[in-house]
Amino acid sequence: MKTMTDPRTMQQEADALRRAGRRLAVVPTMGALHEGHLALIREARLRADVVIVTIFVNPIQFGEGEDYARYPRDPAGDASKVQAAGADLLFVPVAAEMFGSDFQTHVSVGKIGLPLEGASRPAHFRGVATVVAKLFHITRPHVAVFGQKDAQQVAVIGRMIQDLDFDIELVVVPTVREADGLAMSSRNAYLTEVQRSEARVLHASLRSAAERIRSGDRSAPAIVGAMREMITSRSSGLIDYVSIADSATLHELVSLVSGQRVLISLAVKFGTTRLIDNIHVTV
Amino acid sequence: MKTMTDPRTMQQEADALRRAGRRLAVVPTMGALHEGHLALIREARLRADVVIVTIFVNPIQFGEGEDYARYPRDPAGDASKVQAAGADLLFVPVAAEMFGSDFQTHVSVGKIGLPLEGASRPAHFRGVATVVAKLFHITRPHVAVFGQKDAQQVAVIGRMIQDLDFDIELVVVPTVREADGLAMSSRNAYLTEVQRSEARVLHASLRSAAERIRSGDRSAPAIVGAMREMITSRSSGLIDYVSIADSATLHELVSLVSGQRVLISLAVKFGTTRLIDNIHVTV
Repeated sequence: MKTMTDPRTMQQEADALRRAGRRLAVVPTMGALHEGHLALIREARLRADVVIVTIFVNPIQFGEGEDYARYPRDPAGDASKVQAAGADLLFVPVAAEMFGSDFQTHVSVGKIGLPLEGASRPAHFRGVATVVAKLFHITRPHVAVFGQKDAQQVAVIGRMIQDLDFDIELVVVPTVREADGLAMSSRNAYLTEVQRSEARVLHASLRSAAERIRSGDRSAPAIVGAMREMITSRSSGLIDYVSIADSATLHELVSLVSGQRVLISLAVKFGTTRLIDNIHVTV
Repeated sequence: MKTMTDPRTMQQEADALRRAGRRLAVVPTMGALHEGHLALIREARLRADVVIVTIFVNPIQFGEGEDYARYPRDPAGDASKVQAAGADLLFVPVAAEMFGSDFQTHVSVGKIGLPLEGASRPAHFRGVATVVAKLFHITRPHVAVFGQKDAQQVAVIGRMIQDLDFDIELVVVPTVREADGLAMSSRNAYLTEVQRSEARVLHASLRSAAERIRSGDRSAPAIVGAMREMITSRSSGLIDYVSIADSATLHELVSLVSGQRVLISLAVKFGTTRLIDNIHVTV
């Protein structure tokens, strides 16, 4: 595996590989890699000749007071995991190379970025779309692999790919979970033992919502209410949002309709640690 | 010459040409082609194996009340001019293909897009940057050729290329002028005979400003004042702006400094026709 830090060198390498007829996949990450990331790399391995993993803790997707400075970083551990998972190229740029002093161009998405995470983190998706556009230009992939755990991020990037005519296939990999259902996340490392134990309620609440829908409940507010009740009664978590929305548009729903595909999602804070999770359900 | 209207077909063609090792140049235009555009195509011809000309009157760069609907269109004339100038591919998409009903992603530049044209046309450069990003993704060029007449557009696109890591060389071609100095523009067709005759004062005022700088005048406000006086005394034109700014940042200047490269630019309305022009001068 080759490691690169310079965007121009990475770009030239990617361009040469494309000219040589190779199919390229990119897996953009912020490092602190866990099994969820490795599942993305393994999926990329199945879909391309050359797998590029990027590790970059992107400053412009963190808001004021968020955890940019203390976001977990493990460069040595990450590199060996990426290699073991079968990647060919590791791209690890530094922030000063990615965002020079006169940087001033942004990619922003419209209404798909406004609810849910976008409501709680106003500049987040502008930062995500901008850095992903840059990483796409630098790594020139045919395929880009993202995790379903960041459901709205996947929707935003899909929208950007379509709207700006990126010639890139977006592949979404199911969320990888701990044995008790907690979605793997680099931020789980922040949790105390008690919080970690309580946090299992997040996935449990998503599963119980899916079960209610399967049993015929068509009232989104009633289902959301039951989820909120479950989370607050079983944990110290402070709910940021619990939502049932149309999977494609992310419009919040009231009455569910048979055949409709919905995204059930939530964000809950345990102390200073904000966790998100979601599932898609076909009603 | 091959003509294409479908973005996906154009993109596949461009990708195949790149894989075959060909060097691609794109010349993005809004059609109604004149000698200025043909100079761009000829420059592209010198710099690439394959010259792609795009013609698209981009709705999202026109503001409320601007001339989108009546912007001159001459598809048949354009096609024969493009072919005669030596282009290989002509890409002419329709607006509905470029901006579908759920379109919502934009590229916006920061402070370089705020003064001058940006002050008079608030969403203009967002529209320009967005469509140029799309055209870059569709035509996959190594080189992009633009005209110096749209000086701020060139600055905005240069900024976008650098900030978003487009691997594209930006080539800027000097403004082509009529015999009396008027910058060629598709919008010149709107002018009455009297307006056309008066409009020569625009370039004359730019030349006299350059002459004053050469003679040692270092006061931007005094030079701008003399330009305004010249334009209003010799024509019926209504001045939108007359500016002397730093060529790189477009910051408005007061005292000029030896060795500094400055952009002298103006926008003047003759009836409903808004004309722009500019020159770069090294003090």
